[in-house]
Amino acid sequence: MTEKLIYLDNNATTKVDEKVLEEMMPYFKEEYANPSSMYDFSKKSSKAIKEARGKIKDFVNANDEKEIIFTSCGSESANTAIRGVLNYNKNKKHIITSKVEHPCVLNLYKSLEKQGYKVDYIGVNSNGELNLEELEQAVNENTALVSIMWANNETGVLNPMDKISDIIKTKNKDTKLFVDAVQVAGKIPIDVQANGIDLLGISGHKFHAPKGIGALYVNSKTMITPLIIGGHQERGKRAGTENVPYIAGIGKAAELAQDNLKYELTEVKRLRDKLESNIINKIYNARLNTGVANRVPNTTNIGFEYIEGELILLHLSDLGICASSGSACTSGSLEPSHVLRAMNVPFTAIHGSIRWSLSRFTTEEEIDYVIENLPSIIEKVTSISPYQKELKALKALKSK
Amino acid sequence: MTEKLIYLDNNATTKVDEKVLEEMMPYFKEEYANPSSMYDFSKKSSKAIKEARGKIKDFVNANDEKEIIFTSCGSESANTAIRGVLNYNKNKKHIITSKVEHPCVLNLYKSLEKQGYKVDYIGVNSNGELNLEELEQAVNENTALVSIMWANNETGVLNPMDKISDIIKTKNKDTKLFVDAVQVAGKIPIDVQANGIDLLGISGHKFHAPKGIGALYVNSKTMITPLIIGGHQERGKRAGTENVPYIAGIGKAAELAQDNLKYELTEVKRLRDKLESNIINKIYNARLNTGVANRVPNTTNIGFEYIEGELILLHLSDLGICASSGSACTSGSLEPSHVLRAMNVPFTAIHGSIRWSLSRFTTEEEIDYVIENLPSIIEKVTSISPYQKELKALKALKSK
Repeated sequence: MTEKLIYLDNNATTKVDEKVLEEMMPYFKEEYANPSSMYDFSKKSSKAIKEARGKIKDFVNANDEKEIIFTSCGSESANTAIRGVLNYNKNKKHIITSKVEHPCVLNLYKSLEKQGYKVDYIGVNSNGELNLEELEQAVNENTALVSIMWANNETGVLNPMDKISDIIKTKNKDTKLFVDAVQVAGKIPIDVQANGIDLLGISGHKFHAPKGIGALYVNSKTMITPLIIGGHQERGKRAGTENVPYIAGIGKAAELAQDNLKYELTEVKRLRDKLESNIINKIYNARLNTGVANRVPNTTNIGFEYIEGELILLHLSDLGICASSGSACTSGSLEPSHVLRAMNVPFTAIHGSIRWSLSRFTTEEEIDYVIENLPSIIEKVTSISPYQKELKALKALKSK
Repeated sequence: MTEKLIYLDNNATTKVDEKVLEEMMPYFKEEYANPSSMYDFSKKSSKAIKEARGKIKDFVNANDEKEIIFTSCGSESANTAIRGVLNYNKNKKHIITSKVEHPCVLNLYKSLEKQGYKVDYIGVNSNGELNLEELEQAVNENTALVSIMWANNETGVLNPMDKISDIIKTKNKDTKLFVDAVQVAGKIPIDVQANGIDLLGISGHKFHAPKGIGALYVNSKTMITPLIIGGHQERGKRAGTENVPYIAGIGKAAELAQDNLKYELTEVKRLRDKLESNIINKIYNARLNTGVANRVPNTTNIGFEYIEGELILLHLSDLGICASSGSACTSGSLEPSHVLRAMNVPFTAIHGSIRWSLSRFTTEEEIDYVIENLPSIIEKVTSISPYQKELKALKALKSK
């Protein structure tokens, strides 16, 4: 055990930015009014919500701040969007999604299948890129909804949302497109209008706001029923007293993320690339699972052949290094990742695949520390692998 | 305008207790791990959730902490409970509730009626007490769910939950009882076992935790489907990365509320009674809307005859005094409160009814300030009422 903490699991959650915490503090202290109340005391809390809504509107480039709904998390955003669209279009029973969506979306679809919906799951190639022809063929006049993530949480592979939207709308202009944008917020620019997106969900804790706040963009031409029914909040689309501190917080976090986009696309990417190339070059049984696919700047998914990922993570944890295999939402399960399976990552590498995800708080020293310490960890774990013959052959091949 | 703040609207929301904020702070700062992650760094955040769950279990006297689900608010607790029970028992299409439930529950029922459910709305007497005979007659073998609030948010009137449970279970032992306990948490002791309650919802921001966190008790014999489907969190009953800071916060708030129950039942009650009796005695057109009904210790609902509540609230707001007419969740609407209408509060008083709700932070000085200033406000508003003849008659009657 060590006191050191090198946090390279920013796709699981992120540290709250100090400026976000600062923004929230007045609403934990003196400005505690219910924003729906009539008296003067509520004016600051209702103003905070209005301002945050404007910031999220700008962050995703919505047309109108009325198109932004605050939710309690990415899962709620997805559930609201998907079930909201389907409930509003009850006669259409066909949905399209991808095989590599977040478990939150896939589990919801499993439940919808039991309710009589037909769901098509579009595949990906070995780099994790969506099969666009398969998508095109799947859209028909009964397709109520297509739900595609913008970037995958495990691999960081980006989907070309503008092309996807074109494909869908050309075949059926009434089909709605929901985009799970949880893993792109703060990593690449988001533009719902330029990309023809009808609904888009984000989660604050993936870009330095706290856990427990999300937002959903629903364009003004898209009708949904609410998931949480009750009071008049969020124009009747989401009941419940507004979480004023966190709403102020996600607004600030969006503003900061926008300001840091350039840094993310240059410095964070440089550190990610440094980590990635060093691992691939120094460790003979390491394998970049995504090949040349276009990715968010902060993520790399690397398979270590013939060894167990969980064991690598334990050794990393002993050094204070946090990384993950699969997603935090499925951890504890020993099944290999559904994402890597969909990519046909060879069984020799799938169990030993590790996701590394950086943030703007990641330092060069931290990356150097991992580069320095990882080879001996992998060597140790590799030395006890039952596949010594195969490893020897692989080593010989790589040294050619 | 004044800098003074006398907050007597604690049924709308409450100030976060400093000790609650203190409890949350580490999870906004260094302890930001996703509790589902595998590494050592996540241990403190997962431990925080476990401890908070234990505290909520104790707070409602559940049998097992597995019976506690964390949600994002009281509305989500109610939606999860009601729709969860109904989805799990699809063949039963009868529901019973009361006419004075929170709008969050009533709006949900309106939506369920459109989906083919039959909903019976049980009435109350002129003090706001539930008609138990009507309830008994309504329960039949097709009744999936009875949903009754423990205390009303506008009047504070308490329902006898143990009797209600007996009535229901005697007529149909399979009917589930959901209790909206949002307005009793921190005001009277909650015991789900002693009161035969199957599901019970609370909201943190009504007892000095922040807005945006709730909890739902579901006893181990009651099956529900989740409202937010996705990851494995909350034993599959509520997806979404756990809001660790707020979960720690609601746990602490429950502990503090439990410690302060005696103070609530004596001191807060004394101040409420002082406020109430002074208003009733000093102002001739004031009327206690709940009569002798059994109430939570912090609430009084007083009608001022022949005048407009909104105008009273404006004058109060100018003095920095926060109170409300109706509930914050319906404010902005000019319709008189559905609760007071169900109680048949005379039309002469219904428009001028004000809810005053205290907390453990309310001081005697604040109450004295209201007692001192309210009469002249009421006099001012009364003097411009178009009902001068009626007011004169009332004054004559009262002075007898």
